[in-house]
Amino acid sequence: MIKVGIVGGTGYTGVELLRLLASHPQARVTAVTSRKEAGMQVAEMFPSLRGHIDLAFSTPEQAKLSACDIVFFATPNGIAMHEARELLQAGVRVIDLAADFRIRDVAEWEKWYAMQHAAPELLEDAVYGLPELNRARIRDAKLVANPGCYPTAVQLGLLPLLEAGVIDCSHIIADCKSGVSGAGRKAELGSLLAEAGDNFKAYGVAGHRHLPEIRQGLRSMAGEAVGLTFVPHLTPLIRGIHATLYARLTKDCDLQGLFETRYAQEQFVDVLPAGSHPETRSVRGANTCRLAVHRPQGSDTVVVLSVIDNLVKGAAGQAIQNMNLMFGLDEKSGLNQVPLLP
Amino acid sequence: MIKVGIVGGTGYTGVELLRLLASHPQARVTAVTSRKEAGMQVAEMFPSLRGHIDLAFSTPEQAKLSACDIVFFATPNGIAMHEARELLQAGVRVIDLAADFRIRDVAEWEKWYAMQHAAPELLEDAVYGLPELNRARIRDAKLVANPGCYPTAVQLGLLPLLEAGVIDCSHIIADCKSGVSGAGRKAELGSLLAEAGDNFKAYGVAGHRHLPEIRQGLRSMAGEAVGLTFVPHLTPLIRGIHATLYARLTKDCDLQGLFETRYAQEQFVDVLPAGSHPETRSVRGANTCRLAVHRPQGSDTVVVLSVIDNLVKGAAGQAIQNMNLMFGLDEKSGLNQVPLLP
Amino acid sequence: MIKVGIVGGTGYTGVELLRLLASHPQARVTAVTSRKEAGMQVAEMFPSLRGHIDLAFSTPEQAKLSACDIVFFATPNGIAMHEARELLQAGVRVIDLAADFRIRDVAEWEKWYAMQHAAPELLEDAVYGLPELNRARIRDAKLVANPGCYPTAVQLGLLPLLEAGVIDCSHIIADCKSGVSGAGRKAELGSLLAEAGDNFKAYGVAGHRHLPEIRQGLRSMAGEAVGLTFVPHLTPLIRGIHATLYARLTKDCDLQGLFETRYAQEQFVDVLPAGSHPETRSVRGANTCRLAVHRPQGSDTVVVLSVIDNLVKGAAGQAIQNMNLMFGLDEKSGLNQVPLLP
Amino acid sequence: MIKVGIVGGTGYTGVELLRLLASHPQARVTAVTSRKEAGMQVAEMFPSLRGHIDLAFSTPEQAKLSACDIVFFATPNGIAMHEARELLQAGVRVIDLAADFRIRDVAEWEKWYAMQHAAPELLEDAVYGLPELNRARIRDAKLVANPGCYPTAVQLGLLPLLEAGVIDCSHIIADCKSGVSGAGRKAELGSLLAEAGDNFKAYGVAGHRHLPEIRQGLRSMAGEAVGLTFVPHLTPLIRGIHATLYARLTKDCDLQGLFETRYAQEQFVDVLPAGSHPETRSVRGANTCRLAVHRPQGSDTVVVLSVIDNLVKGAAGQAIQNMNLMFGLDEKSGLNQVPLLP
Repeated sequence: MIKVGIVGGTGYTGVELLRLLASHPQARVTAVTSRKEAGMQVAEMFPSLRGHIDLAFSTPEQAKLSACDIVFFATPNGIAMHEARELLQAGVRVIDLAADFRIRDVAEWEKWYAMQHAAPELLEDAVYGLPELNRARIRDAKLVANPGCYPTAVQLGLLPLLEAGVIDCSHIIADCKSGVSGAGRKAELGSLLAEAGDNFKAYGVAGHRHLPEIRQGLRSMAGEAVGLTFVPHLTPLIRGIHATLYARLTKDCDLQGLFETRYAQEQFVDVLPAGSHPETRSVRGANTCRLAVHRPQGSDTVVVLSVIDNLVKGAAGQAIQNMNLMFGLDEKSGLNQVPLLP
Repeated sequence: MIKVGIVGGTGYTGVELLRLLASHPQARVTAVTSRKEAGMQVAEMFPSLRGHIDLAFSTPEQAKLSACDIVFFATPNGIAMHEARELLQAGVRVIDLAADFRIRDVAEWEKWYAMQHAAPELLEDAVYGLPELNRARIRDAKLVANPGCYPTAVQLGLLPLLEAGVIDCSHIIADCKSGVSGAGRKAELGSLLAEAGDNFKAYGVAGHRHLPEIRQGLRSMAGEAVGLTFVPHLTPLIRGIHATLYARLTKDCDLQGLFETRYAQEQFVDVLPAGSHPETRSVRGANTCRLAVHRPQGSDTVVVLSVIDNLVKGAAGQAIQNMNLMFGLDEKSGLNQVPLLP
Repeated sequence: MIKVGIVGGTGYTGVELLRLLASHPQARVTAVTSRKEAGMQVAEMFPSLRGHIDLAFSTPEQAKLSACDIVFFATPNGIAMHEARELLQAGVRVIDLAADFRIRDVAEWEKWYAMQHAAPELLEDAVYGLPELNRARIRDAKLVANPGCYPTAVQLGLLPLLEAGVIDCSHIIADCKSGVSGAGRKAELGSLLAEAGDNFKAYGVAGHRHLPEIRQGLRSMAGEAVGLTFVPHLTPLIRGIHATLYARLTKDCDLQGLFETRYAQEQFVDVLPAGSHPETRSVRGANTCRLAVHRPQGSDTVVVLSVIDNLVKGAAGQAIQNMNLMFGLDEKSGLNQVPLLP
Repeated sequence: MIKVGIVGGTGYTGVELLRLLASHPQARVTAVTSRKEAGMQVAEMFPSLRGHIDLAFSTPEQAKLSACDIVFFATPNGIAMHEARELLQAGVRVIDLAADFRIRDVAEWEKWYAMQHAAPELLEDAVYGLPELNRARIRDAKLVANPGCYPTAVQLGLLPLLEAGVIDCSHIIADCKSGVSGAGRKAELGSLLAEAGDNFKAYGVAGHRHLPEIRQGLRSMAGEAVGLTFVPHLTPLIRGIHATLYARLTKDCDLQGLFETRYAQEQFVDVLPAGSHPETRSVRGANTCRLAVHRPQGSDTVVVLSVIDNLVKGAAGQAIQNMNLMFGLDEKSGLNQVPLLP
């Protein structure tokens, strides 16, 4: 059994890691840290875990994380970069679910995240944990930067088009909609049910932190710089991201075939039949990205619809998928949940 | 007092007309028809109207619509075209909230609405009821085709750009999100709370009936054919439309100034300060369209955010605005509701 | 025009006062205070008020509240008791929408609100602002304690039964359900859409601050002590309270007639026909309480269903109703909103 | 592997059976019938099942249900009573998730369900499938009547009190709140998001079909007739039932200890610590009932809070629990899902 530590277990990605790992046949959570809640039973804070997780939160000091095989950071941005080095030196593998190791260009990272990077020397060996793009490198990684939720939905939706070189890379549009759990388990006015409920709005149009991450990923797929307009929206649902992607075709091609072929071997990417409209609830609670590709009215505009559960394929589930790869397990191990519908 | 008749008072646009007209100082509803519910008190079906509307549904025969000054059709598509002629001949003005008179090209209309048009001869004199575009013609109109909800949000968002000729008209994208009341008060599986709640999806990507209507409007603003990709989405809110519009700038210009100038005299279009993100709830229950214009990251892509309440500015409120114009009243008469927030 | 001041204009009761007063024909808001937001336009914080309220938040010092005719406290508990005396001495009438003057027994108040009362000498003349019970006294009041939201729904539901003396007062049950706006515009984890959405729970079963307020009111109606079990629940809607009330009949009587007679002259209490089930949305945005009374299966248990909009009849609307009474205006002045449905 | 047939696979209990059985280690669904959808892939109708269920709907004739070991009826009321006899005679066990075999008194059943019972002779041997009450009889049953959702939540909440004989049975109140999936996957106006969303109401106060079922169960626990007032409410959530139960204590007792002792061996009933308030989301997707027992303000009224997922412990999950018992499997087999939170 793989011994798993979780740093920061009181947020939504933390409790989602606990939910998924509770039924993982080859991994066992041995420590969950929270300075603030140290001593409290995890299942007291999250009654949904009663009978499934019999652990108390501990301080990082008590947790003996260096005795773990792997540590997940389910912390705010800027924590893992301070603590990863010591763990890596102790032979512990690390997956950061925050943004600390996602951007290769330190200056770019520091601009968007408004802090100094504490471990730029680790960036070189950090692997961006999108298995559908980087599977081989993830297998050998010691340190994985787990992708953001929007970046996962957008990159999986554009990957076949960019690899095939069939779209104009200078004008790509990603119109994205997210449920409120994407904002984290934080007491903020804008996330109240009385504010975000029965309401719809865009935010961050001038610039969102996931923009440089997506741009870096698309550039690596395209082999050239891309021009991307990314507009995130907040929609009144709890879980789920829907990315609607627009690009101009530069070559005629069998779009449906292109997507099906690219993802034929992928267990967590599901290309729907031509003409489909994936729903966020069709992946609720599961580590699946469902895609549909359209060419409305026969024009030269391609439209890709991409849905994920932001807490699973967009966070905790993808992290476990990465762990499975790093430890040579079946990639689906512990990730066979059937989506909850309705 | 203007005597108002409403044909089809049991749907959402019907009850919304009743809500708004209940406090209109210069109009009084004298008849509401519903074959199915004839004899039932309107306020028995809609208890929200108890104390405000003291009328029973009547059959069209009982209703003596020809004694009204104006008749609103809050009916499904394909009804008004059968009944408008007779009313017009009797000197009654008509506003159709459905689609029968929106498209000038009969063949196009018949293709999208899959039925034969029953009154093509009326199309010539029918006026498309978007006051911000057609105010003068509406004043003199006998028959007004009230715009669709998506078309209202999209056209108001693009109007300044198209009139000023500053965007590439061949590739415009309208990514639109609607609350479920847009589907009407109809018992359909896809509109159930257990289906549409906590869920987000696109629909009709291959082609939606509002596409030709929007295209016709944009063409008239631009003076040339436009290439439009229109993707509607269903979002789990009750009222509200959010249109996110993308186009490529062909000329540098002061976008904020352009919008503010164009709408300076408009009482129902509110251009928000630069950098804003309008929320659908900020117009809930009111006849207002709020707009914001962005140029993210200084690129050549302009992004317009446009919100309306689909039942008010997208339907019943706009119909009353048109009525006010047709009868020489203050355009705001009866339309001064403050949005309900939260 | 009555000059109105609002202390604490950034919460939900504050913005609701602004919404309703914006169209009050005999009152005008001249000052809205917020220490934290002083200087900011009210409509910048609440874009729904753009075009309706042209005022900036001011500090209490700048606000010159003593020049107002009436001041509403839309503040947390424990504020009005410090500031009311000075205003009253300056001849300004005061309505507190919080709890400072609701409980006549100081010791009881101090126990439930966990602070020392700063103005016990004002309690004698403070009038509990439930017009259906206290209309005459409110007309002459200088200081009105506006009832809580739960207490309004429960007391209006039980009033006819208690006045008529037809139920066993020793075992009354009030099972109440509230939308989340009842918790106020405060950044709290439990009120997040991701926590309170798609979820239902009871809270405060051991004791809720509205319990002594309701008990005091019921006692005064019954003329004897009452035994009350009050269980509040949080339900995933934004506005609305539904109280389901249970009591044992001690005398046979015409329940429907009893309710209709008691409320025949009341403009804001609507007794529905026998067999009805009032919906919270039927009063959304309006100052109405709708009631239905049942005697299921002919047993000796009476069930009353009572709905209000917690922000209107349960707070700001009732406060304006009280203001109307205090200034000799038509009780409905400014309160004729039609509920928003759907 | 147990061969499972499902009659009526297109409703919410049907798709929930499929979700849960997809990962049951000792059972395999071999047939799913739907006359209307025969020939369509199950996963085409429910994309959430793509990759988990590789079956098409079949007609009852094609389905060869008599070759199954067990058949679940996930049909409307009145279907199973026509088809169960033939299956039982073929040696197939039957679990009806509808109401056909729940009420022992045929006349009572016919009154509430407004049809003639087609198989009264089967009632004698039908076992009411509430394992916490009837485990031994379920093990030997050929025909199980799976309890309704409200009855499950109410009976589990009252069982310890009635068995211990500590409450007044003549006046019990069950104030119940249900999510909309309880109404089934049917196109009905009242279940629309635009109708049931942001709304709360009671329904069926005069009498609901679950009343006789609950009354029958409580009577068997109490050993005497009970007086029950049952008021169901519709709340805007998708899954979940919250029952708030009130009764008068006739003997002093350790309520917390009583509940903990009664359910100490039960794997699907979780008694929360004293003072708790169970949330519906804490059981979302899982076969668990969570309970808390209160005695507010030290009065003689006991309040029990009981939550279940209406589609799992209130329907499909309990049915599988019953199947496990009937086939001598571990009662938890295939039912170890961790609730989905948030």
